Amino acid sequence: MRTVEWNAGKVKMIDQRQLPWEFVHVDFETHEDVATAIKEMVVRGAPAIGAAASFGMVLAANQNTTSDLKALQQYLGEAGERLKAARPTAVNLMWAVDRILRLATSSDLVTAEELREALLQEAQNIADDDVVINRRMAANGATLIKDGDTILHHCNTGMLATVDYGTALGVIRMAHEQGKNIHVLLDETRPRMQGARLSAWECKQLGIPFEIIPDSAAGHFMAHGEVDIVLVGADRVASNGDTANKIGTYHLGVLAKENGVPFYPVVPTSTIDMNIQSGADIPIEERGPDELRTPYGKALVPEDYPVRNPAFDVTPARYITGLVTENGIVRAPFIENIARVVQERPLNLT
Amino acid sequence: MRTVEWNAGKVKMIDQRQLPWEFVHVDFETHEDVATAIKEMVVRGAPAIGAAASFGMVLAANQNTTSDLKALQQYLGEAGERLKAARPTAVNLMWAVDRILRLATSSDLVTAEELREALLQEAQNIADDDVVINRRMAANGATLIKDGDTILHHCNTGMLATVDYGTALGVIRMAHEQGKNIHVLLDETRPRMQGARLSAWECKQLGIPFEIIPDSAAGHFMAHGEVDIVLVGADRVASNGDTANKIGTYHLGVLAKENGVPFYPVVPTSTIDMNIQSGADIPIEERGPDELRTPYGKALVPEDYPVRNPAFDVTPARYITGLVTENGIVRAPFIENIARVVQERPLNLT
Repeated sequence: MRTVEWNAGKVKMIDQRQLPWEFVHVDFETHEDVATAIKEMVVRGAPAIGAAASFGMVLAANQNTTSDLKALQQYLGEAGERLKAARPTAVNLMWAVDRILRLATSSDLVTAEELREALLQEAQNIADDDVVINRRMAANGATLIKDGDTILHHCNTGMLATVDYGTALGVIRMAHEQGKNIHVLLDETRPRMQGARLSAWECKQLGIPFEIIPDSAAGHFMAHGEVDIVLVGADRVASNGDTANKIGTYHLGVLAKENGVPFYPVVPTSTIDMNIQSGADIPIEERGPDELRTPYGKALVPEDYPVRNPAFDVTPARYITGLVTENGIVRAPFIENIARVVQERPLNLT
Repeated sequence: MRTVEWNAGKVKMIDQRQLPWEFVHVDFETHEDVATAIKEMVVRGAPAIGAAASFGMVLAANQNTTSDLKALQQYLGEAGERLKAARPTAVNLMWAVDRILRLATSSDLVTAEELREALLQEAQNIADDDVVINRRMAANGATLIKDGDTILHHCNTGMLATVDYGTALGVIRMAHEQGKNIHVLLDETRPRMQGARLSAWECKQLGIPFEIIPDSAAGHFMAHGEVDIVLVGADRVASNGDTANKIGTYHLGVLAKENGVPFYPVVPTSTIDMNIQSGADIPIEERGPDELRTPYGKALVPEDYPVRNPAFDVTPARYITGLVTENGIVRAPFIENIARVVQERPLNLT
């Protein structure tokens, strides 16, 4: 079972808001509903959002039954804008929609029906590639993990954040499958608790030893020598290596450097945005106040208590030991080494 | 209304677990119940715990109706051990119980009844002194606050953490009362949410502009130049300036230094433990797993998900710009300057 998949004309996704209590699938029939699902975090995680949006574009192509190719292309352009607007930070969303739109406007296509078929194939490719890429990142990253290591992890970066297998949690999974005796400290990750709810659930399923900790305790464990390596995901990496990821990642980068602990974001090259020079150019989504005011549906504080809720932060490249990609581990100097790794053609990908 | 006070033979305290929703007082009639109230965080905050334990000792003296002075002294020794064991990190608890016990074994006392009266007076002195000390710390600390400043604050350090007025939040309150135009970012402070529940409630009462943020967002705001100063409390300061405080404080110290933001714990000299050389000697309380698993009575994750929940961490002195005390602001070199400030006899204290 994949986190996101095409199923009999619909997009089938795990409803991540119900975990760890219920493992529920939901079918989506329109691209508008997929956009809402991304916004409301039925599906989250940069690679999973990219795949969901790709299939959302296929839904859009099927929603509009015109036989006029131009009209369909225009409709798809609008659907793409709608999907891209669902969440601003993770670049995989834009990357996936643009990849679909590039194909949709390709001169090879003559009829609307050809377009619809080609789009489904491309969305499937994006989803299939994601799994291959994740396993490659996992293999590359697992070389960093030694027997007996304790790994600190933030948010969720497992199969639930991708089509399957995972990014940072994929590395952890691979090390575990290689028989390494590892232990994971999972930041609970306020406000949405992806670490406590989703990463813990995945570790439980996979038999990986873990403990949940408050986000604010990560430094305490690093300072006590209890963390050997920090692995995180990424929502967008600038061409200089500055990395946007779930709020709190910046804390981990600074604290890791201060304590001499290696710090690695695990990122497919599709998460690297070569169009921006630095992290200062990455838009940071500010989410609604009720994620803080009313956690898990229970009112913690009154409605008139003001809140700020940035969903992401930027860890400057100087705190990053290396970026684990499907094409290898990128280290400083980041600007030239990132340029090289994104140009490498991946092998055996669709 | 004080957070902790003696009222007609009972100890009257605000039940802080009910805030911000209900402002409820509870009366305690035995020292055992006071110990439980400290353990279960009906009352929390180092100075408030110290005052509660002092009055708890008075309850103990009244619970045992013996007229045998020696027997009463022995009973008080046992009651003191029980109260001290309620929470291990905040030194004010030990300091207050020892101050009461020192008096209880003083050679000036001849009868058990004299002892009981003297103990009540001493507990009242501890409570009254706390308010005077807090106002002095506030006046000293307020000199650090400029008009227009944004102050980052962790946990709760207001009147609720003390007998009245507060430590770090007391500084903020004083600056506000001086007419300075200030703004406070309140870390929500997982897992018990003292920032979101208690500090926000206090700021609301006092009309101090505030916003609640996730603990993990503090660095993001510092990196964006939105924080002018960080003020926190302390549960125990070692003689070299290493400071134990609510989990997450270490993150703030490291991030503040990294971003050139001044970082000041606000601590009465009673929080300084001259018996220990460094923060490594401060016992760190590990609290139960349900604070993470079942926040606010709602199950977030299953009971078999392992958790670690250290309640405090240690910020080494090298990250501390200064310690605001009632006898002035202490800066590096900390070892000699702390020794000096704790020796200064406070003026006008009982």
